[in-house]
Amino acid sequence: MLGKDYNGQDCALARALEVLGERWTLLIIRDAFYGAQRFNDLQAHLDIPKAVLSDRLNGLVEDGILEREPDPTHAGRHLYRLTAAGRDLWPALHALLTWGSRHRQPNRMIFTHATCGTTLDDSGHCPTCQVTPKPEAVVIRPRRAPRRLRDDPVSLALKTPHRLLDPIGT
Amino acid sequence: MLGKDYNGQDCALARALEVLGERWTLLIIRDAFYGAQRFNDLQAHLDIPKAVLSDRLNGLVEDGILEREPDPTHAGRHLYRLTAAGRDLWPALHALLTWGSRHRQPNRMIFTHATCGTTLDDSGHCPTCQVTPKPEAVVIRPRRAPRRLRDDPVSLALKTPHRLLDPIGT
Repeated sequence: MLGKDYNGQDCALARALEVLGERWTLLIIRDAFYGAQRFNDLQAHLDIPKAVLSDRLNGLVEDGILEREPDPTHAGRHLYRLTAAGRDLWPALHALLTWGSRHRQPNRMIFTHATCGTTLDDSGHCPTCQVTPKPEAVVIRPRRAPRRLRDDPVSLALKTPHRLLDPIGT
Repeated sequence: MLGKDYNGQDCALARALEVLGERWTLLIIRDAFYGAQRFNDLQAHLDIPKAVLSDRLNGLVEDGILEREPDPTHAGRHLYRLTAAGRDLWPALHALLTWGSRHRQPNRMIFTHATCGTTLDDSGHCPTCQVTPKPEAVVIRPRRAPRRLRDDPVSLALKTPHRLLDPIGT
């Protein structure tokens, strides 16, 4: 198995990629920003093996990106929420999304500023209010119908506008 | 071998990660921003197997992130340069670096605006000129001595300030 560390690289980017660079990790973080909090919801939305999701969630908790707490509505299960360090990933996630949207496939979600409803620009800035809102003040809504109709709880919740980090799913 | 595609994910982030998500790829792109253009320089700076570097460079050329052209000073060798789509990755790369620097290990490089010399803020913005400079107008310089002394051509070149994308190395 390939390691995930970059011991020879004395660089903040290498340190970030040791935490974020594994397959699926940034898509899990994306779903956490979108409000998914439960293992079963993440698993159904990402459609990945449970062992992979479990491994990535454990790593993200260990690295201080997600925090895990008991799920009050499902005994024996957990909720996963972004920590402050995890929420701090919003600019990087938004920048990667923006690049993908410009150069690969238009993003099917639009991000607007909750305060004024203006669509954020490519740098995540609100041109009306002249601020770069924190993710808590960003509303996500679908731009168009998804290419494939999915009916998992996260996909269903993403059909209507809601604030980033507001819990969605079962 | 794990695939690098995310076929079930109808999302611009997934499309971006299909191009950028493999191990070492973003560190190669970092070095391209820093001005490294030659296979041997990249290989010595990243200290990775030639087969891995070759595979990643071929992928990046195929995906339109790097362009390859004959090296006028070394017959039979090539130069690799970021395309416009590749240079468009600067905000994402800078955001990941910033996160790593804040939450993992302070970045040993400082980015300043070439026009005024002001250090860029965490969003890559120049607070003096009130613009977000393109990478061509960003100067990189070391903040402190590297933790390990390396003497490959890219490490040596990074000891003195220079503009991003200006060629460095042998």
